[in-house]
Amino acid sequence: MSTEPLAGAASAGPTFDSDRLLSDPSLVAFLPMVYVGWADGNMDDDEVEAICSRLREEMGEDCGCSTVLGNWLDAERPPSAHQLGQIMHTIKARSATLENRERLSLTELGLDLARASGGVSDEERQALETVEEALGIAHSEAARQLLATRRPASGPVRHEPSFEIASMQALLDGPEAELRARLRTFLSSDAMGRVDSDIDRAAYREKVLTWCQALAGEGYGALSFEPEHGGEKDPGAFVAAFETIAYHDLSLLVKFGVQFGLFGGSVQRLGTKRHHDQYLHDIGTLALPGCFAMTETGHGSNVADLETVARYHPEDQTWDIHTPHEGARKEYIGNAACHGRMATVFAQLVTGTSGEQAGEHEWGEHGVHAFLVPIRDEDGQPLPGIRIEDNGHKMGLNGVDNGRLWFDHVRVPRENLLDRFATVDVDGRYESPIRSPSKRFFTMLGTLVGGRVSIGMASLSAAKSAMAIAIRYGNRRRQFGPAGESETALLDYPAHQMRLMPRLAETYALHFALRDLGERYARNLADPESQDGREVETLAAALKAASSWHATDTIQTCREACGGQGYLAINRFADLKADTDVFTTFEGDNTVLLQLVAKSMLTRYKKQFHDMSLFGLMRHVASRAATSLSEKNPIVVRMTDEEHLRDVDFQRACLRGREDHLLITVAKRLRNRVSSGENIQNAIDACQNHLLATAKAFVERLIFERFSDGIAQAPDALQPVLDDLRDLYALTCIENDRGWFAAHGFLESGKSKAVRKQVETLARDLRPQAEALVEAWGIPSNLLAAPIAF
Amino acid sequence: MSTEPLAGAASAGPTFDSDRLLSDPSLVAFLPMVYVGWADGNMDDDEVEAICSRLREEMGEDCGCSTVLGNWLDAERPPSAHQLGQIMHTIKARSATLENRERLSLTELGLDLARASGGVSDEERQALETVEEALGIAHSEAARQLLATRRPASGPVRHEPSFEIASMQALLDGPEAELRARLRTFLSSDAMGRVDSDIDRAAYREKVLTWCQALAGEGYGALSFEPEHGGEKDPGAFVAAFETIAYHDLSLLVKFGVQFGLFGGSVQRLGTKRHHDQYLHDIGTLALPGCFAMTETGHGSNVADLETVARYHPEDQTWDIHTPHEGARKEYIGNAACHGRMATVFAQLVTGTSGEQAGEHEWGEHGVHAFLVPIRDEDGQPLPGIRIEDNGHKMGLNGVDNGRLWFDHVRVPRENLLDRFATVDVDGRYESPIRSPSKRFFTMLGTLVGGRVSIGMASLSAAKSAMAIAIRYGNRRRQFGPAGESETALLDYPAHQMRLMPRLAETYALHFALRDLGERYARNLADPESQDGREVETLAAALKAASSWHATDTIQTCREACGGQGYLAINRFADLKADTDVFTTFEGDNTVLLQLVAKSMLTRYKKQFHDMSLFGLMRHVASRAATSLSEKNPIVVRMTDEEHLRDVDFQRACLRGREDHLLITVAKRLRNRVSSGENIQNAIDACQNHLLATAKAFVERLIFERFSDGIAQAPDALQPVLDDLRDLYALTCIENDRGWFAAHGFLESGKSKAVRKQVETLARDLRPQAEALVEAWGIPSNLLAAPIAF
Repeated sequence: MSTEPLAGAASAGPTFDSDRLLSDPSLVAFLPMVYVGWADGNMDDDEVEAICSRLREEMGEDCGCSTVLGNWLDAERPPSAHQLGQIMHTIKARSATLENRERLSLTELGLDLARASGGVSDEERQALETVEEALGIAHSEAARQLLATRRPASGPVRHEPSFEIASMQALLDGPEAELRARLRTFLSSDAMGRVDSDIDRAAYREKVLTWCQALAGEGYGALSFEPEHGGEKDPGAFVAAFETIAYHDLSLLVKFGVQFGLFGGSVQRLGTKRHHDQYLHDIGTLALPGCFAMTETGHGSNVADLETVARYHPEDQTWDIHTPHEGARKEYIGNAACHGRMATVFAQLVTGTSGEQAGEHEWGEHGVHAFLVPIRDEDGQPLPGIRIEDNGHKMGLNGVDNGRLWFDHVRVPRENLLDRFATVDVDGRYESPIRSPSKRFFTMLGTLVGGRVSIGMASLSAAKSAMAIAIRYGNRRRQFGPAGESETALLDYPAHQMRLMPRLAETYALHFALRDLGERYARNLADPESQDGREVETLAAALKAASSWHATDTIQTCREACGGQGYLAINRFADLKADTDVFTTFEGDNTVLLQLVAKSMLTRYKKQFHDMSLFGLMRHVASRAATSLSEKNPIVVRMTDEEHLRDVDFQRACLRGREDHLLITVAKRLRNRVSSGENIQNAIDACQNHLLATAKAFVERLIFERFSDGIAQAPDALQPVLDDLRDLYALTCIENDRGWFAAHGFLESGKSKAVRKQVETLARDLRPQAEALVEAWGIPSNLLAAPIAF
Repeated sequence: MSTEPLAGAASAGPTFDSDRLLSDPSLVAFLPMVYVGWADGNMDDDEVEAICSRLREEMGEDCGCSTVLGNWLDAERPPSAHQLGQIMHTIKARSATLENRERLSLTELGLDLARASGGVSDEERQALETVEEALGIAHSEAARQLLATRRPASGPVRHEPSFEIASMQALLDGPEAELRARLRTFLSSDAMGRVDSDIDRAAYREKVLTWCQALAGEGYGALSFEPEHGGEKDPGAFVAAFETIAYHDLSLLVKFGVQFGLFGGSVQRLGTKRHHDQYLHDIGTLALPGCFAMTETGHGSNVADLETVARYHPEDQTWDIHTPHEGARKEYIGNAACHGRMATVFAQLVTGTSGEQAGEHEWGEHGVHAFLVPIRDEDGQPLPGIRIEDNGHKMGLNGVDNGRLWFDHVRVPRENLLDRFATVDVDGRYESPIRSPSKRFFTMLGTLVGGRVSIGMASLSAAKSAMAIAIRYGNRRRQFGPAGESETALLDYPAHQMRLMPRLAETYALHFALRDLGERYARNLADPESQDGREVETLAAALKAASSWHATDTIQTCREACGGQGYLAINRFADLKADTDVFTTFEGDNTVLLQLVAKSMLTRYKKQFHDMSLFGLMRHVASRAATSLSEKNPIVVRMTDEEHLRDVDFQRACLRGREDHLLITVAKRLRNRVSSGENIQNAIDACQNHLLATAKAFVERLIFERFSDGIAQAPDALQPVLDDLRDLYALTCIENDRGWFAAHGFLESGKSKAVRKQVETLARDLRPQAEALVEAWGIPSNLLAAPIAF
């Protein structure tokens, strides 16, 4: 690389007569053009020559102006950097008194300068316009330098919201408003003060335990337990508390969820009165810290194939809990590494003899059941036969003490089987109120539903935190912008709006869908006769997946939208991102959950039509499809006006139509494969992508409808802004999948473009409401983030 | 919630005559049906009743079989859980000797059982088939339980690759193969042993410094410097080293990049011989640790508006470096918090007086320039006038000591201006070999190009690490699968293939595009007369954005694809994800970079056609558009056969056609807005989303073409698998934007579906090559990850 100054430029000055150019009043009109002509880095010398040629062409060789301009735009005689600086200074000095100079075109600026020092001819005007046109749009940088003035100081962009924030908050907080307010206050109190994000792991875990005890002390842990066990029998309140705690440290959230939701929930929902009386009170006060030991190293999603064994020994009426090999160790068990004293252990229940002696009693393999197993003594030492290992450093949630557990023929009493859904008598005879083994299995897994509802809501809270930080930042952070004005707030850029506003709409939409789910879940728990269970399970799986992916995507986008500031731990994205990352995996891997949703969709149709033949199912679904198809008439497919695009019926027809179509076609594919001799599992695997698409279509339609229902019940004054959000949500769903909608006859080409345009319009129109919309979540400001430096 | 066992089931046993069912040999054929009929949790009692009705309908009321089945499928007389268990045991015991029993349908199993204990009638067969059809696909779980046998042990799925891995690695390593091999060995040596991911921050920073010194000691830091300064004058080798170091700790990578690439690069490229002789040797050995102090709190992307001031004082020939207010402090400066002793400080160069005394000398504001400013003494203490603050904990890269810098009228000698592109003489007269201020500004910013090339490559290395871990895991981790067989490897699931294989294809595609960029960058540096600079800048901006977003997306997807194992720090995703997150922001925010790309595209067209009028530009671009459009004849738009979809000309036509179309239309929109009086900046802002789409289309087309070029030069034996990857990349690009392609007449509905299908097919077909394809990257296994527990 040359280390000398670039050759052949600075010395060309002598032939460029800047003294005359700057002193001759008749040339003043041309100064801006000459400056921009030379000063723009995008323009080569030969381009300058081309401008001069064009000028000569248009104005004639002997035109005075073109001669003059030609003299100072002659590629053979360029000015030096110093001379160009002089020209710029002169223009700035002379134009300082002009009004709105930054609004002027170069021609107008030249003419104004000329007017100030005398007249200007038509010929001059024409010459200037010719050159300006020739300079084109690519020369903004030079013009900017020329016209720039000091930018005024600036603050956040203020917009008057179109709605009352308090009213929106009341709607969003719902029936648990008082609980939420109380908990928000508690969470932002000194007792719950956050830790530095680089805290030592051991100290962090102890701090989280302390916080968790504080919450238990206030009664939040036992909310869903019966009053006789210290609770309020209010699972809806428990879920609302969980949702609110998610604005605080997410390790606390998960520790809270493990102790009260999973461990406590398993005892409550899988155990019977004996277990409740003995343990629930201490679980609710955290006097008995416990674990939910389901996952194993070898089996996470596939719970049915867990390999820990619980064998019944009638001779002393005990269970022998055993880890047969390394892959069967319990893995990622929260509360295991440090604090847990007991664990709900999921294991294969075996009665009778086995292996070579199997014979008549081999059917004593009854599948996965839950057992209470003490793992530590009062001093925190592992009990005999129990081995515990720390999971070590994780991507996030390092305030939670995850660990591994091994059981070496650990004996526990017969009564430690959580026996609500299956009993073993003293002789080892197995019985159950649920005759179907698979139904029994899924009923016991039903303890996970509460976790999925909770994680769905917590994911949304985390997304709200990220969104609130990014919206506030985007309304304050300014960068670039027209010369002489305040720089432009990020949120006023269309690209920034497109990053944040559709996600804000989805956040609102999910809020209403999850609220509905939470209510159904609570109702369902309160009523043991409820037939709603299977549907709640499906909705919980669907919305857990949607909400946790939404959180991952939203937090990432919001971090990027806050640039380098978003990368500093003090501004929260580091923890939000790392802590929530596993939300897409735990309580059910999202991809696996969506497959459950799809299978449930197939089954639900079957149930709905009460026709036992798959062929019959096909007939019914096909006839329904015919209805949908008839709605796709050419006029609708082509209508592009705003009123139509924002019509909830159009949006619903698209989202329902897609779901129906995907479901019908996947059912047909499955049928064809099975008919031609493929086994069912292989057929389902082969159609996996199709099934996942079907489940996703279901989720989006579901969210859309629950959002619409919620809006219908909102106060009138809030409906306009909520309608905008609903439209933005629905049209974003359509736009994101417009390839599918086009390929399946829902959108004609022009309409597809119109949808895209409408999304951009809505994002822009909602932008002034953005800060008010995030304020309505009521996130305490000391929990939200250290103030991002602006 | 009820705490009692669910009511009314277990006592129904007496009326279900299991003794007769199990003992009567003539009933054995029906055992599987009876079991599945009752055992499936998805089926209600009324559904069982419906099966019986149907059987009576088809077979007649008096058919013996239907009577028999009816007796044991009577909703009024269900079996107990215990009885069902007996049935299952009996079936298992009797079918134990049958071959391939897991392959059988329930009917076949029943018939086989019957054959073993006697004959079977046509009527029985018909009854069984009727019931099996009625049970449908929803009963896989019960059938699975019935037929399950122990799964065999299993290991990774082995596939013989279709190509020689060593040959592929040689192709990918390219001319720097020897350097890469040497560096890989060094990086995996004990001297460079990694740290625990929960290491204390201070210790981590010192460790990273030690590693960095080790690399400098081996000569890697000075690779691009002249031999007289200890280097090899080989910027291509420097970039290759950077790419390779990215397989190690990414804090080391960034520290290395700050010291040698940014600090060293600024002295080398913005300074002149005096600076080189004085500093480069010590920079290359790390004897002089330094900073690149460009970004300020108030201005990151908008470098032109930085507010740090460097005012020249002719009386003592010094620069006064000053931070005028809080927003002008230097922010996120690597090496600043602990180790840096000198900084390249970017500041507004001012000569003459200013403010109220401005007058004639106001044009002494010459824009942003770079100055060398000592910040710490030999003992590491900040020098007078320098204030330093630690940036504290960050999302990642905590081994890099980022900090903030304030300058309180710090004086440095006149010679400390890095004066390759601008000089100030002793009297304060400013001169430059580059007359255009904006061209000068962008030339000085050109130091960032090397950083962008490097970050693009490092992003890709990080994506490769993640991809290698996830592919290996997906080939070993098994979960679910047909009963009695090994569970299915994750990578054999279509959804898993669709998550990983297109990203693997993109990783390969980016590799070739970045390799081409690296070569052009090195050539360009070596040849000061090169006219390629602007294009390299554009390509660097485009590929840095594409590659860093690819890394963010790929690492996230790979983490999720490894489930809970991916969340443990020991398996690397935690660091890969957190450390690379800021790659989308630093060295130029991706969104800002893509806008530069779009603007450059507009300008480049202009240059290309050498027509000065924007109208003329429109004419040219429009005529080119006409050519493209004529290619979209109805036959091509509808062709869906594999040969056509995999035709590189078809793929190119799509990607080029989209780019042209977007560019033409955005140019028209800009023109229309400017014509109707809008200022240029506002017009560009209004078209921001359109410009970004244009830039993205450019990048994808670029990557596609560079990949195609690379394949053309590959050994014949490698071409088939590379062609598959290229096809998968191109078709994935088309599929991801098929909404656009459909709306703009490139894809007819059937073709759109065919593209989707072809993507799935290619993902499946490439799956057996996956592990070999990642092995060809040659990432040392001890750098890759702690062995994920399988």
